[in-house]
Amino acid sequence: MRILSGIQPSGALHIGNYFGAIRQYIALQEEHEAFYFIANYHALTSLRDAAQMRQNTLDAFVDLLALGLDPAKATLFVQSDVPETVELAWLLTTVTPMGWLEKCVSYKDKIQQGLPAEHGLFAYPVLMAADILLYDADLVPVGQDQRQHLEITRDVAERFNHVYGPGEVFRLPKPYILDDTAIVPGLDGRKMSKSYGNTIEIFDEPNVIRKKVKKIVTDSLPVEAPKDPDKCSLMALYRLFATPDELSDVERRYREGGIGYGEMKNRLADAIVARFDAPRAARAEWIANPDRVAKVRAEGAERAHATARPILDRVRKACGMA
Amino acid sequence: MRILSGIQPSGALHIGNYFGAIRQYIALQEEHEAFYFIANYHALTSLRDAAQMRQNTLDAFVDLLALGLDPAKATLFVQSDVPETVELAWLLTTVTPMGWLEKCVSYKDKIQQGLPAEHGLFAYPVLMAADILLYDADLVPVGQDQRQHLEITRDVAERFNHVYGPGEVFRLPKPYILDDTAIVPGLDGRKMSKSYGNTIEIFDEPNVIRKKVKKIVTDSLPVEAPKDPDKCSLMALYRLFATPDELSDVERRYREGGIGYGEMKNRLADAIVARFDAPRAARAEWIANPDRVAKVRAEGAERAHATARPILDRVRKACGMA
Repeated sequence: MRILSGIQPSGALHIGNYFGAIRQYIALQEEHEAFYFIANYHALTSLRDAAQMRQNTLDAFVDLLALGLDPAKATLFVQSDVPETVELAWLLTTVTPMGWLEKCVSYKDKIQQGLPAEHGLFAYPVLMAADILLYDADLVPVGQDQRQHLEITRDVAERFNHVYGPGEVFRLPKPYILDDTAIVPGLDGRKMSKSYGNTIEIFDEPNVIRKKVKKIVTDSLPVEAPKDPDKCSLMALYRLFATPDELSDVERRYREGGIGYGEMKNRLADAIVARFDAPRAARAEWIANPDRVAKVRAEGAERAHATARPILDRVRKACGMA
Repeated sequence: MRILSGIQPSGALHIGNYFGAIRQYIALQEEHEAFYFIANYHALTSLRDAAQMRQNTLDAFVDLLALGLDPAKATLFVQSDVPETVELAWLLTTVTPMGWLEKCVSYKDKIQQGLPAEHGLFAYPVLMAADILLYDADLVPVGQDQRQHLEITRDVAERFNHVYGPGEVFRLPKPYILDDTAIVPGLDGRKMSKSYGNTIEIFDEPNVIRKKVKKIVTDSLPVEAPKDPDKCSLMALYRLFATPDELSDVERRYREGGIGYGEMKNRLADAIVARFDAPRAARAEWIANPDRVAKVRAEGAERAHATARPILDRVRKACGMA
């Protein structure tokens, strides 16, 4: 099965990104033909600083490599290196009813959050449809909040097939629902999210990680008091990192009393630092070798292009552009 | 000055198209660096038949050549041969407020005329802005009904310059207002327009032109009656074709009486047929030489591409896509 997803270059990745999506993307490269891209065309709708955009794009690219995305197994590319996606977006847009875009919750949400009502935000789902359909993707990993966009992708593809058929122009992608049941609380106990400013970044230096972990909000029960391991952010995070043995040991001590939040924070910080030790080293190596990064980027673009080109040609032919 | 305009491949050109725009486009190639393209990406918003689209695109291309557009003087190309325009449209769309598109009269008009509310129609002015800005055009020939779109092009360019400046990313184009004061009435006396079904096509066979001219509606004054030359569709059309001498002769006979509509129709038909005799022959020759057409098309695309590419690269760099 061919699987495809885009990652926004929206700055340093945090632990919530990792467990909510990135870790699963990387696992999927083992069993599927995976295409992942850094969605910098999309990011233009919110980031308008060229230097920052270039840096974020490169950072996201390197972060994925460092976390285990293997360019020998998966195709990793930068969206703007394959402009065919924007051409396809225009072809799709001509069969997309306004009503489908007007009903998009994410657009309405962003406007309510105070983002200016730009056409780029509004047209976003059409570009997303193009990203997916350009590669004949079978599966698209989506969180709950993106299911509607994939529905629109399918609707647009079906409409295009109907208008320009007979014969199937587009393969209809299916959602691969990400396991986002893992609760990743942020420093303040709310869901970890950049917009709450409560994140722990994956590639923070160890001492920065330790400092952030110290800030995690707990109740004020003393060391000796029994504690409910299911009502503690430290535990929720620790579950993501601990071995089963470590976990059952700590859970027992929570229930019995005798473990304090100070000790727990040290354990958690150690676990986070240890988990990302190897990726941190890998990342430093990629950064020290920009030519190697550029080579992987060029190869990824070339592979993406080679896959996309015949599909775009098929679509162009179907609507008389060829 | 660089001048640029797009021509919709919406089927056979009629006399109204010729005097309202095409004739002027062709004249402009003498004094300006002219770029003209067949706007097939745009046409997708209204035509959804691949074979028809290909035929219309080719027809429009050949018609322009036959009417005197000289590929040695002007660059003639097909819009979809230079997909850079769509990439630029996405970059522009991310700085285009929804309100600017919502206020577009042409979108509202088309919806009122019963066209379905598709996103392609709504986003049309952004692609038009890209068409213009991709070539650093100085002048854009527009009729009164397209002035608003050029305003939006300028607004979008200014906004992009502001967001991604300092320094000018885009040159601001100016309107070249077409002389559309020439009244070209259709068979029924209303303005000649495909939507009224009252057209005389430039490349109709002479006998078809004669038949159509016979249908032109007049009053029922007899031959001998004096007639007002300013209140007759035949005269309005004849003015476009006659020499000054022919014209003053006929006008005199209108006022004095003694010329009948039958004779006048013959004169007009003769004049139309004669005017387009050479283009009709040229067209037949182009059509008999599809390889020559393909060569001109490829050369036009190559020239357009060579002009567009560095401009798109400049824009990509300005917003961090490069």
